Amino acid sequence: MSARKPRLRDLGITIGTMTPGQFNAITDVPDVRVGQTTVIHGDGPLRIGEGPARTGVTAVHPHADSCWSMQVPAAIESLNGAGEITGHANLDEFGMLASPILITNTLSIGAVHRATVEWQVRMHPEIGPEEWSAPVVAETYDGFLNDTAGQHVTREHVWDALDNPTSGPVSEGNTGGGTGMMLFGFKGGTGTSSRTVEIDGSSYTVGVLVQGNFGGRDQLTIDGVPVGREITDLLAESGSNRPASASDGSIIVVIATDLPLSDRQLSRLCRRGMLGLSRTGSVASNGSGDLLIAFTNHPDCRVSYPDEPTIITSPRLGDGIMTPVFQATVEATEEAVINALVAAETMTGRDGNTAHALPHDRLREVMRRYNRLQ
Amino acid sequence: MSARKPRLRDLGITIGTMTPGQFNAITDVPDVRVGQTTVIHGDGPLRIGEGPARTGVTAVHPHADSCWSMQVPAAIESLNGAGEITGHANLDEFGMLASPILITNTLSIGAVHRATVEWQVRMHPEIGPEEWSAPVVAETYDGFLNDTAGQHVTREHVWDALDNPTSGPVSEGNTGGGTGMMLFGFKGGTGTSSRTVEIDGSSYTVGVLVQGNFGGRDQLTIDGVPVGREITDLLAESGSNRPASASDGSIIVVIATDLPLSDRQLSRLCRRGMLGLSRTGSVASNGSGDLLIAFTNHPDCRVSYPDEPTIITSPRLGDGIMTPVFQATVEATEEAVINALVAAETMTGRDGNTAHALPHDRLREVMRRYNRLQ
Amino acid sequence: MSARKPRLRDLGITIGTMTPGQFNAITDVPDVRVGQTTVIHGDGPLRIGEGPARTGVTAVHPHADSCWSMQVPAAIESLNGAGEITGHANLDEFGMLASPILITNTLSIGAVHRATVEWQVRMHPEIGPEEWSAPVVAETYDGFLNDTAGQHVTREHVWDALDNPTSGPVSEGNTGGGTGMMLFGFKGGTGTSSRTVEIDGSSYTVGVLVQGNFGGRDQLTIDGVPVGREITDLLAESGSNRPASASDGSIIVVIATDLPLSDRQLSRLCRRGMLGLSRTGSVASNGSGDLLIAFTNHPDCRVSYPDEPTIITSPRLGDGIMTPVFQATVEATEEAVINALVAAETMTGRDGNTAHALPHDRLREVMRRYNRLQ
Amino acid sequence: MSARKPRLRDLGITIGTMTPGQFNAITDVPDVRVGQTTVIHGDGPLRIGEGPARTGVTAVHPHADSCWSMQVPAAIESLNGAGEITGHANLDEFGMLASPILITNTLSIGAVHRATVEWQVRMHPEIGPEEWSAPVVAETYDGFLNDTAGQHVTREHVWDALDNPTSGPVSEGNTGGGTGMMLFGFKGGTGTSSRTVEIDGSSYTVGVLVQGNFGGRDQLTIDGVPVGREITDLLAESGSNRPASASDGSIIVVIATDLPLSDRQLSRLCRRGMLGLSRTGSVASNGSGDLLIAFTNHPDCRVSYPDEPTIITSPRLGDGIMTPVFQATVEATEEAVINALVAAETMTGRDGNTAHALPHDRLREVMRRYNRLQ
Repeated sequence: MSARKPRLRDLGITIGTMTPGQFNAITDVPDVRVGQTTVIHGDGPLRIGEGPARTGVTAVHPHADSCWSMQVPAAIESLNGAGEITGHANLDEFGMLASPILITNTLSIGAVHRATVEWQVRMHPEIGPEEWSAPVVAETYDGFLNDTAGQHVTREHVWDALDNPTSGPVSEGNTGGGTGMMLFGFKGGTGTSSRTVEIDGSSYTVGVLVQGNFGGRDQLTIDGVPVGREITDLLAESGSNRPASASDGSIIVVIATDLPLSDRQLSRLCRRGMLGLSRTGSVASNGSGDLLIAFTNHPDCRVSYPDEPTIITSPRLGDGIMTPVFQATVEATEEAVINALVAAETMTGRDGNTAHALPHDRLREVMRRYNRLQ
Repeated sequence: MSARKPRLRDLGITIGTMTPGQFNAITDVPDVRVGQTTVIHGDGPLRIGEGPARTGVTAVHPHADSCWSMQVPAAIESLNGAGEITGHANLDEFGMLASPILITNTLSIGAVHRATVEWQVRMHPEIGPEEWSAPVVAETYDGFLNDTAGQHVTREHVWDALDNPTSGPVSEGNTGGGTGMMLFGFKGGTGTSSRTVEIDGSSYTVGVLVQGNFGGRDQLTIDGVPVGREITDLLAESGSNRPASASDGSIIVVIATDLPLSDRQLSRLCRRGMLGLSRTGSVASNGSGDLLIAFTNHPDCRVSYPDEPTIITSPRLGDGIMTPVFQATVEATEEAVINALVAAETMTGRDGNTAHALPHDRLREVMRRYNRLQ
Repeated sequence: MSARKPRLRDLGITIGTMTPGQFNAITDVPDVRVGQTTVIHGDGPLRIGEGPARTGVTAVHPHADSCWSMQVPAAIESLNGAGEITGHANLDEFGMLASPILITNTLSIGAVHRATVEWQVRMHPEIGPEEWSAPVVAETYDGFLNDTAGQHVTREHVWDALDNPTSGPVSEGNTGGGTGMMLFGFKGGTGTSSRTVEIDGSSYTVGVLVQGNFGGRDQLTIDGVPVGREITDLLAESGSNRPASASDGSIIVVIATDLPLSDRQLSRLCRRGMLGLSRTGSVASNGSGDLLIAFTNHPDCRVSYPDEPTIITSPRLGDGIMTPVFQATVEATEEAVINALVAAETMTGRDGNTAHALPHDRLREVMRRYNRLQ
Repeated sequence: MSARKPRLRDLGITIGTMTPGQFNAITDVPDVRVGQTTVIHGDGPLRIGEGPARTGVTAVHPHADSCWSMQVPAAIESLNGAGEITGHANLDEFGMLASPILITNTLSIGAVHRATVEWQVRMHPEIGPEEWSAPVVAETYDGFLNDTAGQHVTREHVWDALDNPTSGPVSEGNTGGGTGMMLFGFKGGTGTSSRTVEIDGSSYTVGVLVQGNFGGRDQLTIDGVPVGREITDLLAESGSNRPASASDGSIIVVIATDLPLSDRQLSRLCRRGMLGLSRTGSVASNGSGDLLIAFTNHPDCRVSYPDEPTIITSPRLGDGIMTPVFQATVEATEEAVINALVAAETMTGRDGNTAHALPHDRLREVMRRYNRLQ
């Protein structure tokens, strides 16, 4: 299982000063579960529709019930909009999330959207004749390794991620929607991290999951150290004469918490996720779709639908005590990106294109030289 | 052909003071073309996946070339976000439209998105291995008349609308994506209108196309007259015991022009489209997804992609002369909605549900009483 | 007292279908009070700093306590941003209003801002050494009648409006900040209106106050009737050779309610205020600063500051029942503008410039012809 | 002169990889000039209105002409809105900056606004009778050291900064609006930096000026090194029993360039300024007003007012080559903050409160230990 691979902290490197939750994962937020379907088949030259396939789909479930009939406060923000996240207008208007959050490759947005609607219709037959749905589906681009025009993510893959989410450790690296992704010229993919926050004697968690696919090598920064300027080899290799992607990546950041927060406050968390990205070296390059979504599943913040109460009484933190929550979000976002990088393994995909794993020993050596190894 | 049916002006009713273009249609903007596929089959009780189908898809093409490789300035605004329009983040970031604008029913967003991507891949094989796309697909809800969960809009329907757009008159009413829609308790659907604007001796056009599906009867206002309070019968009839839709509609407004405008100025036009909706009686009710998109296809505003120039030099109007353009947008939006209403014909759909056409003679009678007939 | 002058309803003209509160004023919202200082002195040619002065300041108090130490949910939206409203960034971030809302002439923003801060410091001496404030001050332009560069609004005028607010009827027309304003080429100024909304057997109010200074004559629309195309004389007259203002006006809309609403829902109300403006004929012309601010003073939505609770539990309406609240907002906004127009009296100001009152008898005659007189 | 004091690079510490302009200052952007008035008088206990005064005002002039009659493209973004920047609605609507950018202390917004209007009226007597103005005035809070409620910034101070701007080196630290500010528990204030960008053989500059007043000590990060966790003493000291400020600071970031950019692209630069702030350790704490404004003074992007052309033809960079511009903005923002910190000198202000300078030798020692000294 991926979770047994060494993670950043196992290498003696610590981001920030706050304490992670039990699994240092988005699933440390009680009730949050993650489903991932990884789609890998074929090798050699690209034949659109046949492969090679190096892709998948990730589903983040805010809680154990249907998110359509038990909605949670949420917000979306864009650091750089060269990407897609569906359901945006609806989420902005009502401040509520009404579906799991799906993440896949860029050109599978349509397939995953349709499959998610069909999955919701299966559970809620009133969707269609009486009701509607606008699910949240986001993407990053995996065309360097994957036959992304070939539409290898099927309804069954989506339903599998939706029907089989798990608690506890989250598989990182070449998994789910992150399967074919790249980070700073290394192999990238799915990563996660968390921080705990104490409020009035109660413990809450901020958890982050990213699907990371951005960055030039020279930007890579880990705990403030310019790692990308120190490890300049092991760049992605093109296995053919076909031009490599002109796209310069993207990242989807999912921020989950069980703190009582309003949608307005969740949009504040999204902006702190941006600050976390900056610390990994991101300048939000022109073609990078850097989108962030935050939700709380605090029980008293959930709202049933369509039998919504006439008057909803929800708790939120006083804004005056938000700063530690911001710090937690910055740290967990930064660490989730680096966890994706540490977990990802060397992969060869379409046309023999290869993305290399970040070598852990060399990373430790660099960090030691900069006095940052524990 | 629908365009031969009487339109609002044929009934002696005129909206505003500015002059429409030749066809009083979005296609009066040179180079703009509209493709519509109407999907109607089956009768009787709803059997999800079988029908009855009362739906379709509409494609607005900004110009004759691929919009992916020759992009145009554009903006999206939300009056009430209870709906969906994909491609929003990308369009906001770059201020450019990179696909035709597709409009369909709510649950077909995924199918239409995927079909549009595949259509783009067909023309631009670099999409996938090297490039990406985030098409613009919008929706309104037709579940009162259509088996909307049944996914009756297929790839072929989408490609048909994309491959066969036309200039000149635009079919209105029960056509394309508007096939199963309702307005103010009457049958609604697709409508269009335009206004000409003179600037420094040159003539430009603002054209609007709507897919209209909103409004309670008592709100219906035509040229300032409270028509909905005068014609209170002919409400939609449920043909079964199945509950009617709880959704209270939506409208997609597409605003096209050949004026030289920036993306910022096009967002100003979107806000004037909202003012036009108000004049038909809309209060942008809670569940209505009222989304507006505006673009200009002025030749010197187009930008080629991905071989974008290093420095782009584009014209835009001085803001100081925008007021007549705003007036044109308000008037054309108002008239496009009422044109949809006037063109739509009585339709019986799933479960025998029926939406009635607005009776033209009674409309004229009301308008005469309020001294508004020409 | 102005409130004894005939108002729109006294002329037999009714906007919309919902019921106004007792005074048909923003002060129908319990606890809301309005203070106005009217500054009129001098005649004849403009001598900057000497006059003639035709200006003032209006203060809307959300409740009887200090709004700095007992804040209320609020939102600001811009229909057309050619104006100023201070305190915007802070209000957006926290969703709370922390000062009364001040409205004055364009060039007195600074003076009114400073006077408001000093007034707050007087009550809260911790502002300065320990705390800060960012008051909300908005404006419209009165340079056609007023020596606006002459800074005739003093600290004492501001403190007078802040210290002496009243409940009950609100003086309309040439009063407070609206003293020198114009509407549709007639004299304009301050106007107000309200609507009651029943929720679960409780009665709530939506009240609107406007400072109206926009519109071309031919746009003027009252209850759907093109009054401005019928009364084409009585245009504003320039009393000298000095060019008249190039500015095309502005409107500030203040929406108050005692409904339990979140800041997100209050921004929805602002957008409905825009729809109300449209119905008076506004196309939000290029140079018009059309800004809207909405707040609720529901007791359980107020938050004390700086001793904010750790966890705030506030009620809000289920969004599903918002549509009547939207209708109320549209109607009250529309009527408030027309009330300002009906109340305003002919005024001659700087350089002998004159704005005429809308003649009530001729208005009634036009409305009768269009079958709109009760 | 402050500019002769050692700056960050003089200490052997370099931020990023790109090359600064001649003065490593916002004034490296041709035509940009900065005026600063520093107001320091009095000592001992706070007597509101008497002092001690530790404050001032900074004016950034985009070019040598009046910015009202020759406007430049600009954008404002908020990372955390607990602050004030006037002129926001107008700048958003038109995408143009129509005044110099003024920065002062929080409670002097009104005084500086009024003085700026009066300065504009002096040059443009049509402002008032025919035209209007909405100047841009921003602030951070200096109440720990300054009698901020005492209104020590006068019209003459503002006019001095407006009338006497200079090119070349910019005084940093305890100067202008930054006089009484604090950073990470040390003394802060005004800082600046720049980067050059080559496009098609031409050299352009991105320059940043900040008024910095934010951050907790443990957050302070310089070139990735956790300096604030290493230098934990020299915290600000309260000289009396009066509570210290509850406010947790703010920062105003002014980004100037001579690159041809649209207002939309300038808002992209503002978001990169946020990323630069993150790298100094900012998490944008709850009470910090972190506001960013960017403009270009490229000659072909300027627009004359009110005699605006009918059609404006402006150049902008193709977005595809923006990434180095983003990198430049991130680096210059980060370095400007640290330059403010390095330049600021220990100051004792109201009630004997003291903020200490960052000790340069200890900073160098920490950086050496982390292998970051050149």
